[in-house]
Amino acid sequence: MEDQLFAFLSKYMTLTEGEKNLILELDVFRTVPKGHVLLEAGDRTEESFFVLKGCLRCYYIVDGEERTTSFYTELENVSPACIVTKEPSAYYIACVEDSVVIVGEPSKEKYVFEKFPRFETLCRLLTEELLVKNQITFDTFKNSSPEERYRQLLETRPDLVQRVPQHQLASFLGIKPESLSRIRKRLLKPSAS
Amino acid sequence: MEDQLFAFLSKYMTLTEGEKNLILELDVFRTVPKGHVLLEAGDRTEESFFVLKGCLRCYYIVDGEERTTSFYTELENVSPACIVTKEPSAYYIACVEDSVVIVGEPSKEKYVFEKFPRFETLCRLLTEELLVKNQITFDTFKNSSPEERYRQLLETRPDLVQRVPQHQLASFLGIKPESLSRIRKRLLKPSAS
Repeated sequence: MEDQLFAFLSKYMTLTEGEKNLILELDVFRTVPKGHVLLEAGDRTEESFFVLKGCLRCYYIVDGEERTTSFYTELENVSPACIVTKEPSAYYIACVEDSVVIVGEPSKEKYVFEKFPRFETLCRLLTEELLVKNQITFDTFKNSSPEERYRQLLETRPDLVQRVPQHQLASFLGIKPESLSRIRKRLLKPSAS
Repeated sequence: MEDQLFAFLSKYMTLTEGEKNLILELDVFRTVPKGHVLLEAGDRTEESFFVLKGCLRCYYIVDGEERTTSFYTELENVSPACIVTKEPSAYYIACVEDSVVIVGEPSKEKYVFEKFPRFETLCRLLTEELLVKNQITFDTFKNSSPEERYRQLLETRPDLVQRVPQHQLASFLGIKPESLSRIRKRLLKPSAS
């Protein structure tokens, strides 16, 4: 797990052995089983999660129905909105698969930034990257039909289509489950030539 | 204009006179007239824009038609995605109104971070805040009907409804212009009691 983390970080900066040891000392790795709820709607938390293995899902409950808004897989970070809003969380975060995550929290972050100031630059760059990635995803969502959204998902995150239940995927794409079934059938059918 | 900027920054940290002067010396304020295009699709840029006065709009051209994806008004920042992707921009940024913006660019950012390291912390916090704000906006968009989206806009950004043309607003809300007209009429009509 450490190797995966350090390989990821090395894309941004070369860490010294001292810096690597500092991260390992923090004891931030947590194994969480499939189905485990990391955050409940209504709760408050200061913990954020960086996925090393597995898949996390954010969902709201609207009129008694789950509405999935995002999935996070390997090397993606989910910082619950409530950390910034200081309000109780509006959504749940649960494990779609057995997962290994790095749990971040402000006291550990502060400690790392003090001992290892370059880490703050790294966090800023990662957040800026994430902001752009999310903006492109939102723009694409707005500019696409349901079928186009599903096609784009097959191109950009093909693993997700295999890993998560179809009704969660439909909700995530803003499509009714029966519409997603129709789209999938249409795309599977060889086109008349 | 400076006062507005410093009032905004003071919500996050108290600036010394030296730090304020450093920002003013950078000569980052730019006045841009209504209709001016700050970024063309297909171009590359390293400039980001922080709106002090006025309104900027991001839009794509899809099948010859403008698709508005976002508006930025006072004290909002737009960092074009192409700064991070290193690809030509997929969208345009234009002024909906006569505007005053602060133009950021990497060399000035680097200079400020070196002279004034706390500014990097400030930028990280602002980016984290923006990430959460955008995530909530996207989640709300996914979980809402067109009418709900318009109602939410009236609540959260009532000024926008007055400031931008209705066809741009419709596109921004992911609604056809004729549907938005119907929604507006329905909401204006006093409900039968």
